[in-house]
Amino acid sequence: MAEVTVTRVLRFNAAHRVHNPALSAEENAALFGKCNHPNWHGHNYRLEVSVRGPVDPRSGYVVDLGALRALVEREVIEQTDHRNFNIDVPYTRGINPTTENVVVAMWGVLAPAVAPARLVRLRLWETENNYADYHGD
Amino acid sequence: MAEVTVTRVLRFNAAHRVHNPALSAEENAALFGKCNHPNWHGHNYRLEVSVRGPVDPRSGYVVDLGALRALVEREVIEQTDHRNFNIDVPYTRGINPTTENVVVAMWGVLAPAVAPARLVRLRLWETENNYADYHGD
Amino acid sequence: MAEVTVTRVLRFNAAHRVHNPALSAEENAALFGKCNHPNWHGHNYRLEVSVRGPVDPRSGYVVDLGALRALVEREVIEQTDHRNFNIDVPYTRGINPTTENVVVAMWGVLAPAVAPARLVRLRLWETENNYADYHGD
Amino acid sequence: MAEVTVTRVLRFNAAHRVHNPALSAEENAALFGKCNHPNWHGHNYRLEVSVRGPVDPRSGYVVDLGALRALVEREVIEQTDHRNFNIDVPYTRGINPTTENVVVAMWGVLAPAVAPARLVRLRLWETENNYADYHGD
Amino acid sequence: MAEVTVTRVLRFNAAHRVHNPALSAEENAALFGKCNHPNWHGHNYRLEVSVRGPVDPRSGYVVDLGALRALVEREVIEQTDHRNFNIDVPYTRGINPTTENVVVAMWGVLAPAVAPARLVRLRLWETENNYADYHGD
Amino acid sequence: MAEVTVTRVLRFNAAHRVHNPALSAEENAALFGKCNHPNWHGHNYRLEVSVRGPVDPRSGYVVDLGALRALVEREVIEQTDHRNFNIDVPYTRGINPTTENVVVAMWGVLAPAVAPARLVRLRLWETENNYADYHGD
Repeated sequence: MAEVTVTRVLRFNAAHRVHNPALSAEENAALFGKCNHPNWHGHNYRLEVSVRGPVDPRSGYVVDLGALRALVEREVIEQTDHRNFNIDVPYTRGINPTTENVVVAMWGVLAPAVAPARLVRLRLWETENNYADYHGD
Repeated sequence: MAEVTVTRVLRFNAAHRVHNPALSAEENAALFGKCNHPNWHGHNYRLEVSVRGPVDPRSGYVVDLGALRALVEREVIEQTDHRNFNIDVPYTRGINPTTENVVVAMWGVLAPAVAPARLVRLRLWETENNYADYHGD
Repeated sequence: MAEVTVTRVLRFNAAHRVHNPALSAEENAALFGKCNHPNWHGHNYRLEVSVRGPVDPRSGYVVDLGALRALVEREVIEQTDHRNFNIDVPYTRGINPTTENVVVAMWGVLAPAVAPARLVRLRLWETENNYADYHGD
Repeated sequence: MAEVTVTRVLRFNAAHRVHNPALSAEENAALFGKCNHPNWHGHNYRLEVSVRGPVDPRSGYVVDLGALRALVEREVIEQTDHRNFNIDVPYTRGINPTTENVVVAMWGVLAPAVAPARLVRLRLWETENNYADYHGD
Repeated sequence: MAEVTVTRVLRFNAAHRVHNPALSAEENAALFGKCNHPNWHGHNYRLEVSVRGPVDPRSGYVVDLGALRALVEREVIEQTDHRNFNIDVPYTRGINPTTENVVVAMWGVLAPAVAPARLVRLRLWETENNYADYHGD
Repeated sequence: MAEVTVTRVLRFNAAHRVHNPALSAEENAALFGKCNHPNWHGHNYRLEVSVRGPVDPRSGYVVDLGALRALVEREVIEQTDHRNFNIDVPYTRGINPTTENVVVAMWGVLAPAVAPARLVRLRLWETENNYADYHGD
């Protein structure tokens, strides 16, 4: 049976500051430059959630993308949209919210939530010029 | 010799209705919601056709993308553009035209048509927020 | 007091057929070509709704764009999304649903609905290559 | 002599909170909802700067867009990028940073800075779904 | 009768060099910097052609956008696509091909060609970060 | 430790002519059509540079994307932007500058330059309708 990968795009915006609390202020400033600005900055993030599997002969779907969207909104977007990654977001508590760390943390939330469907890629765009992909390994 | 994957993007628009004729009207409505609306709806689809192979030293091409475009237009777009997937399109006859089923059906048409070039991915965007990828397996 | 124009973008998809019921089948086919295809086709439409006015000193808004979005969804999108312009949509009943006619008909619904805010432009994209602007005159 | 309008697009990202300091916490929350979240959120803003004038016969330019870009970066972007509109940005000091108020404040900075060239429109996109236009009146 | 503005987008690519032949090499280099590079550079241009008029009650169109597209391709794109503005393009012969000068020259070709339809704006994007608008005055 | 792929997008524009100097003028014209036009044409290229590796626990980065951007600008963009691939660009000297050949040549420059970081994909868009991917094998 054919295996297809379906992707749903979602958008949210959030504030953050790239900052490692285990380092000194000087080390953070040297390492992260303007991304370490203490009064925060923010982004319109774009998240692509990809699930792979056989096409269900009854529905013609790998997964119902409407249901997938609702799940991602409930598990990730509601905790994140119009929030601050460093302060408010439960799945990045204590984590320096670089795009890399955020996308790995989102995987930790979403991979079990979409099971038995198989999450195969999260792509997180921070700006229209950079993104991070995580495949779970 | 270097192997490169080249991709050509094509666009078309079509009407469809997500509907499994083997199910009752009630089952279809429950399963597909507004996508099952009986009077059809439609999309501006975007199709990405990817072919992989060695770079021909004479042409510097994997394939001539102008020729690939003409082939895809002749084999797929002409049968589909400004048409109805459920009624008019030969390669989706009897198939519930979800994005997943359409992309697999297009593969069945295009993979032999581009040979000996090797089709490695079809990506079909239904809206700017969802797409399906098929790799032929 | 400064006057600003704010624009909210909304998206929907719909089926249609460009067809003037006052003409014969032959005249329609000659006039509209593939856009007159009897089994419908469809688009992912993009609607830009622009309202102009003074900036309210209390809110800093011309209008609350969240409320504007809810109003446009209630008055226009819910009647249109995943529907057929020729059959289902109340504000295009009996109208040949070209982009021009649709955008003028939407103005007839939205201009009174947003009052006393002043609607100054509707831009309707039918595809990423064509759009129609209406300013109410 | 022909008059042309030239537009340069610039991008930056910033944190903000929609908040009127003259109102109570309850009034702010009621008026602005999630946009009033106390720990900030942020956006990738996109600014379009439009200047109109005759085409200089020597250069073929209305203005040198490279020089215009440098001017906007020096006068607006450097004070704003990776900053917080409510705390850091000099031209929005004491102003509730809605898109409307920000675009009017940017006009106050840029219109004299580009003179004798004539600024005719600032368009500020807050997200890909909403923007504000100001023409200076 | 309602007046609507319809816009058709077309794309082409071309080489050019920003260069005023009435000036010395030094003056050109000082004035235009890297855009004056002698071995040319090039762009994927995007042209938006806007025509305004009453909606024809028979067709529901201001103009047939398919016919408008064919006209623009015949009058402008065929002479320009995959060509060099400084050497090959008849309507920019002897003209320094800045975006401003090109858009004015295209108006000279297109305004009479679309008559009696009324051309109201040409927008020419040189890159995704800059464009020029001409309204014929 | 999680492995993430980070991608930085860069843009440049350049002139080129698809031309194999080992072939006759007639063979080149037959093989490449309008892309072989002798007076050049050009494109706004978009380059996506992807690096894969473990997330550094100190920085939360796979690589510092600001440093990666500076490296790509220094090694590739400065030699290419506003230049001619057939005449000016050192890494395509003697090479027919198809998208395929250019992306492989860029890999030859960038893979050693980003080491010990691991370059895993270069995607080069020639227009918004075609791109080539190279993975180094």
